[in-house]
Amino acid sequence: MYRKRNLLLIASLIVCTSYASLHLVENDETVPYPDGYRKWTHISSAVIGPSSPAFSRFGGVHHIYANDKAMKGFEMEEFPEGSVFVFDLLAMVEEQGTIKGGARKFIDVMVKDSNRYDSTGGWGYQEFKGDTKEINIGNLERQTCFNCHVRQKKMDYVFSKFRP
Amino acid sequence: MYRKRNLLLIASLIVCTSYASLHLVENDETVPYPDGYRKWTHISSAVIGPSSPAFSRFGGVHHIYANDKAMKGFEMEEFPEGSVFVFDLLAMVEEQGTIKGGARKFIDVMVKDSNRYDSTGGWGYQEFKGDTKEINIGNLERQTCFNCHVRQKKMDYVFSKFRP
Repeated sequence: MYRKRNLLLIASLIVCTSYASLHLVENDETVPYPDGYRKWTHISSAVIGPSSPAFSRFGGVHHIYANDKAMKGFEMEEFPEGSVFVFDLLAMVEEQGTIKGGARKFIDVMVKDSNRYDSTGGWGYQEFKGDTKEINIGNLERQTCFNCHVRQKKMDYVFSKFRP
Repeated sequence: MYRKRNLLLIASLIVCTSYASLHLVENDETVPYPDGYRKWTHISSAVIGPSSPAFSRFGGVHHIYANDKAMKGFEMEEFPEGSVFVFDLLAMVEEQGTIKGGARKFIDVMVKDSNRYDSTGGWGYQEFKGDTKEINIGNLERQTCFNCHVRQKKMDYVFSKFRP
């Protein structure tokens, strides 16, 4: 009996792990680095300061950029395939009452590919460290991106609004 | 003698006023509104807070945008004719430790036209009120723009640096 239970447990673990791998790897290194995003359209910016509940994760000066496809999405009900948003987070530098962006902390990227990222609303999520193309997060954080963006399901999972 | 002095004074005033008019009117309504600037390249941003010496004039959240010609200027020693920069100033809105841009206060524009604006380093300066195309400053303030930008003569009068 004890042996059977153990076998069942091991089998379950194998199934779960395989499922987890299958489910999450597709969202792993498939989101490409958004080359040239700094010349895309600037959507909006904000400074997240120490008294914000989001400070530990997103504290600093951030700018959001959208590629041309994502810009078209703002006029439609849904963002077209290939839409990309970049959340560009810089350290906060304060001097004589002026706040500016300092060193880049990371960029967060979301790309629309409904076939590939069907399980996360059609969007793939990725984070790249500093000024590098080095992946900065694991599957758990990627899932967290989706868990937050799902609140915006009605807006096709996008929080940003173009600030004319 | 007294009469001669008075005549001289009046003559001087006429000359000075005419010179001022000639000198400044050319820089008056000739700088066009930069249609579509919100989709130009975002150069940099900053928040000028109440403890900054620049607060009374420029307090708020600002973004700087450059057109394609101005972008080319960053790679050269000089900005090409037709280069345009926009300094887009929004009111500061603070909520739960996050600072965002609110209503637009004004936009400041500088346009490179060496023939037209020879007396101010080849750049014409203008300010438009809020979200309108209404001119927001007079010749005195335009002169002040130049008096400040002249400090950057070595950089062709441009303060901004593209933040890659």
